[in-house]
Amino acid sequence: LPLPERSLISRIRQQQRSRLPNRSRFSNGGKGGRVIAGIGDDCSILRVPSGHEALVTTDFSLEGVHFRREWHPPESVGHRCLARGLSDIAAMGGEPIAAFLSLALPAKLAQGWVDKFLQGLLKLASDFSVSLAGGDTSQSPNGVLADIIVVGSVPKDKAVLRCGARPGDRIYVTGSLGGSAAALDVLYSGRVLKAGSYPSHFRPVPRVKAGQFVRSKGWASSMIDISDGLSTDLSHLCEESGVGAEIESGAIPRATVGSPARQVDIQFALHGGDDYELLFTSSKAIPSRIAGVTVTEIGRITRGKAILLINNSGAKRRIRPEGWQHFRS
Amino acid sequence: LPLPERSLISRIRQQQRSRLPNRSRFSNGGKGGRVIAGIGDDCSILRVPSGHEALVTTDFSLEGVHFRREWHPPESVGHRCLARGLSDIAAMGGEPIAAFLSLALPAKLAQGWVDKFLQGLLKLASDFSVSLAGGDTSQSPNGVLADIIVVGSVPKDKAVLRCGARPGDRIYVTGSLGGSAAALDVLYSGRVLKAGSYPSHFRPVPRVKAGQFVRSKGWASSMIDISDGLSTDLSHLCEESGVGAEIESGAIPRATVGSPARQVDIQFALHGGDDYELLFTSSKAIPSRIAGVTVTEIGRITRGKAILLINNSGAKRRIRPEGWQHFRS
Repeated sequence: LPLPERSLISRIRQQQRSRLPNRSRFSNGGKGGRVIAGIGDDCSILRVPSGHEALVTTDFSLEGVHFRREWHPPESVGHRCLARGLSDIAAMGGEPIAAFLSLALPAKLAQGWVDKFLQGLLKLASDFSVSLAGGDTSQSPNGVLADIIVVGSVPKDKAVLRCGARPGDRIYVTGSLGGSAAALDVLYSGRVLKAGSYPSHFRPVPRVKAGQFVRSKGWASSMIDISDGLSTDLSHLCEESGVGAEIESGAIPRATVGSPARQVDIQFALHGGDDYELLFTSSKAIPSRIAGVTVTEIGRITRGKAILLINNSGAKRRIRPEGWQHFRS
Repeated sequence: LPLPERSLISRIRQQQRSRLPNRSRFSNGGKGGRVIAGIGDDCSILRVPSGHEALVTTDFSLEGVHFRREWHPPESVGHRCLARGLSDIAAMGGEPIAAFLSLALPAKLAQGWVDKFLQGLLKLASDFSVSLAGGDTSQSPNGVLADIIVVGSVPKDKAVLRCGARPGDRIYVTGSLGGSAAALDVLYSGRVLKAGSYPSHFRPVPRVKAGQFVRSKGWASSMIDISDGLSTDLSHLCEESGVGAEIESGAIPRATVGSPARQVDIQFALHGGDDYELLFTSSKAIPSRIAGVTVTEIGRITRGKAILLINNSGAKRRIRPEGWQHFRS
């Protein structure tokens, strides 16, 4: 490895030590000794709990596509990078075990930026007892390039897939929607924004516990995370399940953001991505709060293939996926 | 997902179907039904064989850093991308299960390039019975950006680490070294090159079977793959094991490349990377051919910390890691 890469690895190791006490390469780090060997060999070694299957997800966070350095503080970029992966594990009802980071940095990037990026990532990892167990480092020809891989586990045959929704099932979402898109709207307009007033954009919380809860109860017939926007992700779920849906405009929980705080426009809640809430279907009535997060019924699965939006006066119109196009750079 | 990404996924699926017959998303594809669900859900689901641990490795292949489109045919870029990951699994003595590809493409890239890239990658995957089980796609702000993740397995506690070399152990390498660096030397000089005359650069073969063989026999006290060059990777192995080494210059197997064929300079064999041969240590004398590849004893592990090169007249000089700096762009 060239020297810049070696020093990056040292930095990652140091960050790990400071954030995740009592962890070393062969410490059997993570929950229940599931990371046998981490950064420093050709591969990392993980132990998947007996009777469980492994879950694997990968997500790019590319400068200019998924974030901008002039808009996003480095801690937020690191946080969002890992949140994307954890949210995918949540959407299967799984438990995250370890994260792997492939990180390419431009030659001129300030060390402080990288340190804060890793701080943001490792703080979220620590919150979810996830080890950063390996990855790759490289010089980048242009911009910061990150790819996060999260490996998790789920009891055998119990993963909640996208394809299980059945006509008549109720449709639920966790938390509230559109807060992340509302932040982007402000950023695009060039107006000033207080990051703390838009937590769902700068520090989204992946719904790992809620996903595990509905999976363990056997409540969800299908599940997906809302990364591309409700209209797009609901259409993915319906397509994989071979069904349609009707959702009530007035029932969609809209995020409250900004300062002074206000509820976001319905368009952001319908089509805005990157909120990392869960969308799931169930044949049962679900409590309105699970694992510390609100759960809202927003509609029903139907036999047809269309996705219909019902407004407050009962009129129905077909909606099409208009999800997340990332940054229009 | 934006439309270009959706069509890329369709293309990956089609490529998979054509290359890997009888595979569908829920086909229990791969060896022994170990990929339960692949491309198309929030996560892929893998089954790790009972009594085994999971191996995970990630490797970037970035345009301008790891390859150049004007130098490398797209099939070669795809092949090399996956070979990097498979080689890391080989270096642990593991068996690959599935690969995941995060792929970001510039808006203007020709479809034909992507198709051939995937063909090269999927041909190698097929050779090793590895499924392409998921990943991520994105638009790239600049150049082709790929990150390959390979997940494999190894019997519990049997992975061959870098840290087990002991004084007196013999040092072995598979195959021959320096062929990949020799190709780069020609490319840098601006001379014309026939890719077929430099297979170790354009189509390196990861030594998965050889790695498994020495692991299953219990022969290797430590192992690493030679991705950064013999001098660098031997120094990694010695550092992790807390030992030194003496290697005989005349014993290092040098690649024969080019047209007309000639043996590469010793400097390429000592310091050139990207050959993806295995370097391992053993307290035993190993056969000169295992799993279809030659194995050459090149020296001994020593108690000191230095790495010494012994020339043909018996003189020793200290060598320092001068490994792979990727492209000096």
